[in-house]
Amino acid sequence: MRRLDEALKLGDIASLIGARVVRGDPGLGIHALASLAAAGPDELSFLMSARYAAQARDTRAGAVIAPPGRAQDIPAGTAVIEVDHPHRAFAAVARHVEALQQRPAAAGIDARAVVSAQARIGQRVTVGPFTTIEDEAEIGDGVTIGPGCFIGAGTTIGAGTRLDARVTIEHDCRIGERCRIYAGTVIGADGFGYADTPDGWEKVPQLGSVLIGNDVDIGANCTIDRGALEDTVIGDGCKLDNLIQIAHNVRIGEQTAMAACSGVAGSAVIGRRCRIGGSAGIVGHIEICDDVVVGGMTMITRSIKRPGFYTAAFPMMENADWERAAAVVRQLPQWRQRWRRLERAVGGDAAAGEGDGTKTDHRTEE
Amino acid sequence: MRRLDEALKLGDIASLIGARVVRGDPGLGIHALASLAAAGPDELSFLMSARYAAQARDTRAGAVIAPPGRAQDIPAGTAVIEVDHPHRAFAAVARHVEALQQRPAAAGIDARAVVSAQARIGQRVTVGPFTTIEDEAEIGDGVTIGPGCFIGAGTTIGAGTRLDARVTIEHDCRIGERCRIYAGTVIGADGFGYADTPDGWEKVPQLGSVLIGNDVDIGANCTIDRGALEDTVIGDGCKLDNLIQIAHNVRIGEQTAMAACSGVAGSAVIGRRCRIGGSAGIVGHIEICDDVVVGGMTMITRSIKRPGFYTAAFPMMENADWERAAAVVRQLPQWRQRWRRLERAVGGDAAAGEGDGTKTDHRTEE
Amino acid sequence: MRRLDEALKLGDIASLIGARVVRGDPGLGIHALASLAAAGPDELSFLMSARYAAQARDTRAGAVIAPPGRAQDIPAGTAVIEVDHPHRAFAAVARHVEALQQRPAAAGIDARAVVSAQARIGQRVTVGPFTTIEDEAEIGDGVTIGPGCFIGAGTTIGAGTRLDARVTIEHDCRIGERCRIYAGTVIGADGFGYADTPDGWEKVPQLGSVLIGNDVDIGANCTIDRGALEDTVIGDGCKLDNLIQIAHNVRIGEQTAMAACSGVAGSAVIGRRCRIGGSAGIVGHIEICDDVVVGGMTMITRSIKRPGFYTAAFPMMENADWERAAAVVRQLPQWRQRWRRLERAVGGDAAAGEGDGTKTDHRTEE
Repeated sequence: MRRLDEALKLGDIASLIGARVVRGDPGLGIHALASLAAAGPDELSFLMSARYAAQARDTRAGAVIAPPGRAQDIPAGTAVIEVDHPHRAFAAVARHVEALQQRPAAAGIDARAVVSAQARIGQRVTVGPFTTIEDEAEIGDGVTIGPGCFIGAGTTIGAGTRLDARVTIEHDCRIGERCRIYAGTVIGADGFGYADTPDGWEKVPQLGSVLIGNDVDIGANCTIDRGALEDTVIGDGCKLDNLIQIAHNVRIGEQTAMAACSGVAGSAVIGRRCRIGGSAGIVGHIEICDDVVVGGMTMITRSIKRPGFYTAAFPMMENADWERAAAVVRQLPQWRQRWRRLERAVGGDAAAGEGDGTKTDHRTEE
Repeated sequence: MRRLDEALKLGDIASLIGARVVRGDPGLGIHALASLAAAGPDELSFLMSARYAAQARDTRAGAVIAPPGRAQDIPAGTAVIEVDHPHRAFAAVARHVEALQQRPAAAGIDARAVVSAQARIGQRVTVGPFTTIEDEAEIGDGVTIGPGCFIGAGTTIGAGTRLDARVTIEHDCRIGERCRIYAGTVIGADGFGYADTPDGWEKVPQLGSVLIGNDVDIGANCTIDRGALEDTVIGDGCKLDNLIQIAHNVRIGEQTAMAACSGVAGSAVIGRRCRIGGSAGIVGHIEICDDVVVGGMTMITRSIKRPGFYTAAFPMMENADWERAAAVVRQLPQWRQRWRRLERAVGGDAAAGEGDGTKTDHRTEE
Repeated sequence: MRRLDEALKLGDIASLIGARVVRGDPGLGIHALASLAAAGPDELSFLMSARYAAQARDTRAGAVIAPPGRAQDIPAGTAVIEVDHPHRAFAAVARHVEALQQRPAAAGIDARAVVSAQARIGQRVTVGPFTTIEDEAEIGDGVTIGPGCFIGAGTTIGAGTRLDARVTIEHDCRIGERCRIYAGTVIGADGFGYADTPDGWEKVPQLGSVLIGNDVDIGANCTIDRGALEDTVIGDGCKLDNLIQIAHNVRIGEQTAMAACSGVAGSAVIGRRCRIGGSAGIVGHIEICDDVVVGGMTMITRSIKRPGFYTAAFPMMENADWERAAAVVRQLPQWRQRWRRLERAVGGDAAAGEGDGTKTDHRTEE
């Protein structure tokens, strides 16, 4: 991180988070925040819990935010602030530092933006150069739109939302309040809908739209398509990482988080508070209930009705081992016949447990 | 979807698709199209086939387009239009509605675009603001180029093609007629070609180009690289979804469709009318024949000479079950030895079928 | 590739690479480079090694660059240049042709770019139209920035680096010298950091930055996030293909190459000279040593301490076979019980090898 030009006093930092310096000099000047491993003598770090005590013992940080009673884990020369939730306290300090480092942003509508006279622009709106805002777009109060963006006709952006550079939102979409959309993301392109005809693919018009709730963050270079008839919907408080694909008619419940490179196919419905792993995929037309966790690189191929953690990834191996294992995987159906033959040949005794086995199999095959 | 300000009369809709209202009031005003589940009393839906009869029975739609003889599946208060192909008829209505809702687009070349005097621009061309068109580019009649695009020197764009916002097409590429390219897509960046030298990676010049056929659609934020020597080629009528990667020298046959997040590595050749699933991958330097279907998240690792449906995805499981299954997968080569030992120990009787089994294995191991 | 308007003489090409024409007319005019299969009578190709002799025998190329002593593999009517490393010699010719075909580029800062008066701009800098460069950005000598780019405040770009169209680099990042960044890539967006609170996700400020070394190439539409506290670091000489995601705090060693659509999750550390396959994923907070090769579509789920080739991909099968195999994979934990029961039932003899087997299993389960 950039160092603060002007140091913060440790005592002032403690006050900021409603805590106190239990060891060391409250007058100590802090120039930056850092991890336990990287922090230097004029930097502040934090000890999340006893689990990280070993790293704390080796830290060279000037000061550490720690939970009550862990001062003994921290070198004697390092100052200590005690709080109940060090991670959250540290995040609060980080937000303070972020605000201090914020450069004064340009305000108002840049003369090199193209804003339709038919657009409705709220109070305290910032629009960067080379941005286009079309007819009947509606931009809420306090919205910031970066340079090189495109806001299509009839699209609404809620108060306090911020778009970074080169965001595209096609016509007639609705973005909620206090959202953050990172550079390069495209919202409202046509869904991938084609009818298979004797003359080739025939495009099916995509008449729906995209509805993004409040407090939604969408990472860089994502794509969220408009619906075919009904809208594609992202619920309040969802957080999407980079390079994510959301197909037409998808609906995602509130507070669901998706890691980078994941994708959701057409008309899938995802519940609330789900966590989708990186590079995971959800096939189309299925429904996932609330509170489902999906592992990385996992393809969810059918509806999930029970909260839980679901995975589908081949285990990683050295390539030579993998080649052998993969060869056996290909032969598994043949082997299953051979196992059954073996069981029959071995007979009664081995079959002692077969009943259960078969039952169990049946359940898992459902 | 946006509702129509002015209702369409049901009878006029029937005429439009060469059908007739077999039940209900032809004067009924239709304000929007919707699915059976979502449609309201002034909205039109469709019943594709008897398979969806249950949904039809619960619909609140004002009118439904249905195949002949299915009126009994539709609530008595709902009007019915009968046609042989309800889905295609509905798509035709949707295109009509789409045209009605189209806002009058800006025409001509925006004063804030930069168009080289050495570019050749056809009739009825639209160019948005902040778009750059370089020397010797050739833009066909009726082409629409959105805001913030970049068209490199020597690139040709065929008649009737439309580029949305922020599309980049590098120099000397050729795009066919009636194509649609969505926002953020990059065509013609250098292929990923480096020679491994003692001093590190040495770039191999990418002298080829990209050739896109007619009637090709390319989704948002895709990347299609130029060839190393020969060109990267996408055949007529191909449809590509969002976030797709096509590497250098790839050739894709006519009418092939690829779902989002899929990727094709260098010099792979894909046939005609293939369907590539979402997040699938095709390795480099292989050849896939016509009419191949590739499952989602499947990696195609060798050439395919026979049309068919190919898959390679770990089955999805609850994570605890997956951990157990994955542990066994890792042990499969060891288990194979143990199974063989078991078979030998059990001897002649169990081996009754072993001959076939082994033969079958051999075939699948090829 | 585009043909050269003016032919190169074969003898001049030979001189250029310090070689000589051992057969045929040094005055032969060469208009383009091509592969053995595609080259015509006024085109030059190359024979990398004896392995490609069959293709060489069928070539229609006017001339071929070949290793010493392979002239007999090449049709009598085709001229031959002999060199020790034909591939590298050919690449050198390709670079020469590339330079000849380069159009004269615009120089200087386009009048339609917005460059802050507080930015420091080096000598011989080119900036395209519709690009924004913010306060305190520092652009090195000989840098080329394409149209529609955004360079945030405080960001440094080293000498000789080239950005294509529509590249976004957020504030306070540092890009090395002689880098190449392709269109649509976003560097320095906030990392995906949220704390899970009772009121939903709370954003954790991302105070770190992105540090890109020298001679790094980054493909189109990639995303490289800024660090949470420390920086995200890409080492000298790394080559990244298109659509790659690098999360916050990731560190990648020198000369590592990553194929398209791969992703690295937060705080992962990757060594030097690694090669990451297409669509591969590296989970967060793990460490991969130098000289590791990762297969396509492979998820690396734990640290790797030993150089080697690692894979994790389900083998590709016809879908009907895959369904059967996948069903067995799901049942593997149950089958393991049954195998063990079988082994017990078969007893001493079959167990002859069980000891080893179990030991082996133990090793692989670690």
